[in-house]
Amino acid sequence: MKTEIKHVELENIISEINKLQTDTVLVIADHQVWSLYSKDLLLEQIENKKVLFWKAADGEKVKNITDFQNAMEFFLDKGIHRNAHLVVIGGGATSDFGGFVASTILRGIPWSIVPTTLLSMVDASIGGKVAINSKSGKNLIGAFHLPTNVWICPKFIETLPAVEKNSGMGEVLKYSFLDYSIYDLVIRKAEMSQIIDACAKFKEKLVTEDLKEIGIRKILNLGHSFGHAVEFIYNIPHGEAVMWGTALLFKLFGTEKNLNDIAALKKALEIPGDHAPWFNKEFPIDKIMMYLSKDKKISALSSLDMVIIKDIGNAEIETKSFDEIQATLEANKDELRKFTI
Amino acid sequence: MKTEIKHVELENIISEINKLQTDTVLVIADHQVWSLYSKDLLLEQIENKKVLFWKAADGEKVKNITDFQNAMEFFLDKGIHRNAHLVVIGGGATSDFGGFVASTILRGIPWSIVPTTLLSMVDASIGGKVAINSKSGKNLIGAFHLPTNVWICPKFIETLPAVEKNSGMGEVLKYSFLDYSIYDLVIRKAEMSQIIDACAKFKEKLVTEDLKEIGIRKILNLGHSFGHAVEFIYNIPHGEAVMWGTALLFKLFGTEKNLNDIAALKKALEIPGDHAPWFNKEFPIDKIMMYLSKDKKISALSSLDMVIIKDIGNAEIETKSFDEIQATLEANKDELRKFTI
Repeated sequence: MKTEIKHVELENIISEINKLQTDTVLVIADHQVWSLYSKDLLLEQIENKKVLFWKAADGEKVKNITDFQNAMEFFLDKGIHRNAHLVVIGGGATSDFGGFVASTILRGIPWSIVPTTLLSMVDASIGGKVAINSKSGKNLIGAFHLPTNVWICPKFIETLPAVEKNSGMGEVLKYSFLDYSIYDLVIRKAEMSQIIDACAKFKEKLVTEDLKEIGIRKILNLGHSFGHAVEFIYNIPHGEAVMWGTALLFKLFGTEKNLNDIAALKKALEIPGDHAPWFNKEFPIDKIMMYLSKDKKISALSSLDMVIIKDIGNAEIETKSFDEIQATLEANKDELRKFTI
Repeated sequence: MKTEIKHVELENIISEINKLQTDTVLVIADHQVWSLYSKDLLLEQIENKKVLFWKAADGEKVKNITDFQNAMEFFLDKGIHRNAHLVVIGGGATSDFGGFVASTILRGIPWSIVPTTLLSMVDASIGGKVAINSKSGKNLIGAFHLPTNVWICPKFIETLPAVEKNSGMGEVLKYSFLDYSIYDLVIRKAEMSQIIDACAKFKEKLVTEDLKEIGIRKILNLGHSFGHAVEFIYNIPHGEAVMWGTALLFKLFGTEKNLNDIAALKKALEIPGDHAPWFNKEFPIDKIMMYLSKDKKISALSSLDMVIIKDIGNAEIETKSFDEIQATLEANKDELRKFTI
């Protein structure tokens, strides 16, 4: 099973839905996206199919078990079947949520995504990781369920708030360390649609090799263990958090070259903000360690797999004990207060 | 991925758990089973592993989204990881529930089952179909998640209420139509542990070929579309409902030989009750049709795949339109009032 990724103009999205081999289409759309784009996405133009529409609370807000239950009961009550097809229209949070619905309704139905944020186009919509949040942390309740299609329409980026756009740039920055050709496109300031395509296809390739993240797919977690902790502690957007998580990782376990590269990429991608969220504050070691210990990616009680960048395009997984991470954080505590990139 | 099915004595179950390659064991046990067997299953004898214990409401009662949320938040709050291993101790409902927890917690962790009912030993514990119930019907929210081990201990059958035992016999009856060697064991009244083993391994073989029920696995649904409807309408145990669902299927779309075979198997398995649940009542065509239309196994809005038995061990899938099913029910309406096997 593989995802077909392709660029689609806004006005052609409905005709893609019309081509789906099913008589029943479920649609989950982000509330905010729908208020901006429902006039361009006329569901009444879907032909010869039963259409069930459920509007999701904005972004991350929908990723809870009550909304999950409501969406499931809504669709099930209307009478659907295993060949029904779910289409998600929204950012990464909406597709995380919608994908979890698709993966568990009737034990799983096919689904497709229209990603409406940069973050989702380059990352969240690819690879079938779907989830909702738990009281104990983000994405702790979920599944692996590959979408059939990802229809990328860069036009959505035009209405994206700057903070959301920068958040996507944080993930593009991550890819630049994992693949030399993406690094090159970014440093040369290539067209954004070309960069999106390269990122999405790079991820799709890794995921096809290793859906369940047992091996190579793990490199996509670069900066994410620290990143998730930083995201929770400072309540900052995901992509920014990943950038700071990556920077922190490089500072603690990386090289001078890693730090120079991240600075150059940050500049090329025009990601604003020079100061880490913890700048001039006490570095929150205890909180960081607490979030790390609840990270999904840990594989034992006392250690964590981390992605180390030997050079652009050359990533390796190293298992670090919590004791070592804590000691390294303690040793760098004072320097971290004035850390900038 | 394959499930290892083996017979284990009651007193050796803890040592099987001790052999699991993990430092963290999650246990979900059925409330009723635990009140009878906790003295034989001493969790404090699990060595060098963190053990998290969650007691499930009796049987089917646990299969709701609130209990799902409670169990998930309980385990996540305690801090677990992807190599943690969940052990379910209980009947089919408990393993449906526990398996859904295992399939969605941290996007899926490995799990094993100690089935404590006959129904679960021969059927529910094998094959990785896991689920909870929706307001619209049974098992509509779920996943496919194969257990690593099924440890069968027929001793649990000793404390099983007669109605539960008969329910398991209903599934054994189903297998007897699908595989000649099982039919032969049943008709020859072989040892129950031998019959259990044959059923479990027959199912495991089909499931290995077709986990997601796209092809051959569908034959395991013999009698289940009508069976689920009958189970809901008359509130009778699953296995009995499957027997009557199969009998109804044979009456409508099968042969005289099918009906003779089911009578002989029912007798050999000592399943009591000669009269269908609808005996001497009006046959509930509308309700049956309503449940069929919500069946997970439908693949289009207007038809249903049904399993037809050409002869013992020779099953075929036939797609029947709802119109045809309804017409056949109408035509047999009066005869069904006095249907016995």
